[in-house]
Amino acid sequence: MSIITLTTDYGLRDHFVGALKGKIISEFSEVNIIDISHDIDPFNILETSYIIGAAYSSFPKGTVHIIGVDSERNKENQHIAIQWNDHYFIGADNGVLSILTQKVVPQKMVSITIHDRLHNDATDLDVFVKVACHLAKGGLLNVIGKEITQLKPVTGLQATVTADHKAIKGHVIYIDHFGNVVTNISKKQFLDIAKGRPYEIVMKTKNIKTILPNYSAIATNENYSMKNYEGEKLAIFNEAGFLEIAVFRSNPSKVGSANSLLGLGYRDVVLIEFKN
Amino acid sequence: MSIITLTTDYGLRDHFVGALKGKIISEFSEVNIIDISHDIDPFNILETSYIIGAAYSSFPKGTVHIIGVDSERNKENQHIAIQWNDHYFIGADNGVLSILTQKVVPQKMVSITIHDRLHNDATDLDVFVKVACHLAKGGLLNVIGKEITQLKPVTGLQATVTADHKAIKGHVIYIDHFGNVVTNISKKQFLDIAKGRPYEIVMKTKNIKTILPNYSAIATNENYSMKNYEGEKLAIFNEAGFLEIAVFRSNPSKVGSANSLLGLGYRDVVLIEFKN
Amino acid sequence: MSIITLTTDYGLRDHFVGALKGKIISEFSEVNIIDISHDIDPFNILETSYIIGAAYSSFPKGTVHIIGVDSERNKENQHIAIQWNDHYFIGADNGVLSILTQKVVPQKMVSITIHDRLHNDATDLDVFVKVACHLAKGGLLNVIGKEITQLKPVTGLQATVTADHKAIKGHVIYIDHFGNVVTNISKKQFLDIAKGRPYEIVMKTKNIKTILPNYSAIATNENYSMKNYEGEKLAIFNEAGFLEIAVFRSNPSKVGSANSLLGLGYRDVVLIEFKN
Repeated sequence: MSIITLTTDYGLRDHFVGALKGKIISEFSEVNIIDISHDIDPFNILETSYIIGAAYSSFPKGTVHIIGVDSERNKENQHIAIQWNDHYFIGADNGVLSILTQKVVPQKMVSITIHDRLHNDATDLDVFVKVACHLAKGGLLNVIGKEITQLKPVTGLQATVTADHKAIKGHVIYIDHFGNVVTNISKKQFLDIAKGRPYEIVMKTKNIKTILPNYSAIATNENYSMKNYEGEKLAIFNEAGFLEIAVFRSNPSKVGSANSLLGLGYRDVVLIEFKN
Repeated sequence: MSIITLTTDYGLRDHFVGALKGKIISEFSEVNIIDISHDIDPFNILETSYIIGAAYSSFPKGTVHIIGVDSERNKENQHIAIQWNDHYFIGADNGVLSILTQKVVPQKMVSITIHDRLHNDATDLDVFVKVACHLAKGGLLNVIGKEITQLKPVTGLQATVTADHKAIKGHVIYIDHFGNVVTNISKKQFLDIAKGRPYEIVMKTKNIKTILPNYSAIATNENYSMKNYEGEKLAIFNEAGFLEIAVFRSNPSKVGSANSLLGLGYRDVVLIEFKN
Repeated sequence: MSIITLTTDYGLRDHFVGALKGKIISEFSEVNIIDISHDIDPFNILETSYIIGAAYSSFPKGTVHIIGVDSERNKENQHIAIQWNDHYFIGADNGVLSILTQKVVPQKMVSITIHDRLHNDATDLDVFVKVACHLAKGGLLNVIGKEITQLKPVTGLQATVTADHKAIKGHVIYIDHFGNVVTNISKKQFLDIAKGRPYEIVMKTKNIKTILPNYSAIATNENYSMKNYEGEKLAIFNEAGFLEIAVFRSNPSKVGSANSLLGLGYRDVVLIEFKN
């Protein structure tokens, strides 16, 4: 069964997501629709890129991903569809896909051209539904769009390496449901630069000396129960491959979280300093 | 595959929605269950009508819509099932379907009579599940209910036209996830009354002179980027066909919304005044 | 079609739930995935037990339930899978399943042993996905684990009967979306002890004299409309079989709820006192 995923900032309170699914089902009844998130911070391009980038590879190749964030077509944002890493992505050319595809060149990119084939009241989502069902049925990108060679350039936040290779400077790009703080420093970038050197993670108010393989690795003392470690700060590379500052078993409304306890907010700086 | 949609005020935190789906699947494993909303304001009839009315037509004809808002059967509210615009709706006769069907007469209406055929502990939702699966399998309304000729009358908020046809007086009936404010003034009613006359939308503190075809139409100056228009107030007829007062690219927690910036709340008056 | 349900504390904002579904679909495309809840209070074992216990029996026998709460494997919590009441449950041995299965012995329990068969970066959820799909396809527990004879003992909150059988002392274990307050006093326990004696429910600030068969039974006066009863406190045994203190047609953000109006919070005591 073909799969279409949905990533939007529509929220779950209104009828938008349900109506979108109704339209997809009306067009292609044999499709499996899966929600990635509908609680993207409204119009937040950076957050959308992180979420879709962290989720897409869990789906089978050939999956079609609709991105309904800042998706209204206007003089600045064309509707596009791309094939990248053997997945399809449909959205507006507003920067989401530029950020996502920064490191691997898409296999094919088209500017969607079917708008005049739809009825007069067709919305942006009607266009995405049409394209998504076409692709989910195995249709070609060329049939619904005109090939393009580049996406709109964006100046997304990038983790940078200092000239002397003594530090990586990253930023907080996402704060998750548990209040864990995700940076844009990737595991790959860290390994490339670190080359086994000792390091320290330097944040606003606290430092961390080790990146753990998983949350429970905080428990180093065999004689202590896991409960003793609740609330302790730690760093890991998360499943999406990015450096995450967390608090062990954090509950934002009770013990607090990395976000609240360490005072780390969206776009704040996180440094990894190397010792030699 | 048959479709059953769900519109409730159960929220997503508890087990209610999951259990409801489990019951449907147990009764009819080959059905496609789609959520419209589970975050209806508890017991809010007007909001339920708006949401189901805005969503149902995106689904294929023959879709069965369960309405789980104020659905307990009691001396005032009988359980009903109706066929309307080639869709099926199941709920309590509490006003939701009266408001929804105000302008088009239902094709068939029945008072559900299967309660004594179910086990003793059967809940209101068990009844709805039984009826929904019966209809989704192609069953007839007559088999599960007794035909009725009218629904419980309600005095829903209606947009009214002044005697001199100089104004339409509507109310805010819904505030969406983006803080956009939806009124009960329909595009059809506006076109019927306006007859091309110039007009002005008069709200609590601000007026708007034009209803736009879409959000991005706010950008009238070719030399300005879309970013310059963020936070500007505008009016459109939304996808559901109702006048909506919005703020361009609103993010309620950041730039603010029509709801917060214009001080427009639930049930507040919005006027369209005609100039001649 | 086989069914896998999901109960987690991941929230719906992040990509976790979507990615989990993608992994399941990648492993077993013909499965029906149904959400029970993703808004479990983070790491709350007691709440998880209540929610999964209240939901599971609405699903067909053979359904596989993944419990993604406090699921990281560590020195204290092994990964387990059990068959209980003809359903399968997969999670960490952190107390959730101990509480759930307190009154009925599981049919089979295994400690999951497939970790070394998965790739190096396999997460806890990857393990659960593998096991869940194996079971959903009809596979045996023995193939993925080693039989165990008991779960980790927990000291969950239990409703207790006084030595003189004059009272049942329970606690608030859950506060639902409507602000209704659920206790751990079960209908079965009440009937066993009450033996028809008159009783009174004694709470922090108010008492209730009768347990109603359903919410609408609050309306005892034929001459009053249901509206007159809005906001009145009442007690029922809910669908999950536990004593619930509610407010008729409660809307936590408007009229208030049992939680707010009666001052009943998580873990507070609720007594049923018998009169002779």
